[in-house]
Amino acid sequence: MQRSKKSSKSDKHVTPEKGIKMVDILHKVGIASSPEDVYTALSTVEGLAGWWTDDTQGESTVGGVLQFRFPPGGFDMLVTDSDPATHVAWQVIDGPEEWIGTTINWHLKQDGDFTTVLFKHQDWREPVEFMHHCSTKWAVYLLSLKSLVETGKGAPAPRDVKIDSWD
Amino acid sequence: MQRSKKSSKSDKHVTPEKGIKMVDILHKVGIASSPEDVYTALSTVEGLAGWWTDDTQGESTVGGVLQFRFPPGGFDMLVTDSDPATHVAWQVIDGPEEWIGTTINWHLKQDGDFTTVLFKHQDWREPVEFMHHCSTKWAVYLLSLKSLVETGKGAPAPRDVKIDSWD
Repeated sequence: MQRSKKSSKSDKHVTPEKGIKMVDILHKVGIASSPEDVYTALSTVEGLAGWWTDDTQGESTVGGVLQFRFPPGGFDMLVTDSDPATHVAWQVIDGPEEWIGTTINWHLKQDGDFTTVLFKHQDWREPVEFMHHCSTKWAVYLLSLKSLVETGKGAPAPRDVKIDSWD
Repeated sequence: MQRSKKSSKSDKHVTPEKGIKMVDILHKVGIASSPEDVYTALSTVEGLAGWWTDDTQGESTVGGVLQFRFPPGGFDMLVTDSDPATHVAWQVIDGPEEWIGTTINWHLKQDGDFTTVLFKHQDWREPVEFMHHCSTKWAVYLLSLKSLVETGKGAPAPRDVKIDSWD
């Protein structure tokens, strides 16, 4: 997921052309904990650094920008929604060209002793090979999130599970 | 991924209605081995049983049907293509209702010391919660495939990594 960050310049907030089928990455994990605990891991810099990347900075409230950095690059996310124990949403405002303008939604709901996390990374413009990579890599990070909340120990970058030669 | 198998009866080979946006699951892993070795793990009953599910039976050549069984159910796949070191394709002919009529493609290509596996599970009719589950679960099994080919030891069901309360 951490391919080199390209200069995005004028193509920030790109709106895909009408008529193009856009494609989404979808995932689900169930975490043996409360929605409040999962929300904390998704809505605080400390929580996010515990499962996605050690190098997480910024402001996690609505209207803030989070900076996630990996050895070869990173992502800037505008926080567009943060509803305790329920929903977190980000818009990608800087990062690899393919990510600019895409949105990421985290929906949480209680399911018995579990919190179900429904994850959507939406509105990719094309199902490029990089999207395949990011889909698998998101699954790896969602399992890191599950581990962090359940055991106190996640596997954020640079200690993340490697999936291919881009990692 | 192993939700109860429902009776499919007359709805085999369902063709989605025209005009409906269909959705796909995409993944990628890079395996430190040759395309021939990865192909063996995807095109033989013994190989498939080494990373997806212990209970794999059937005929893996084109026109054959593979039966994959998990504790709560399973999938029957018609093998529609099997091109050594390059491509394997299946059509789902029995299993959970949401899977019937979907297709699964495995494309292999050499990338230096790695074999890149591009995986597509295409033509889901709706992005239901079960599809989110299956997307994450496919990532888990692709990492099991990677482990099998690289180390000789995969994590097929029932020893697969559990991701939620459906597992």
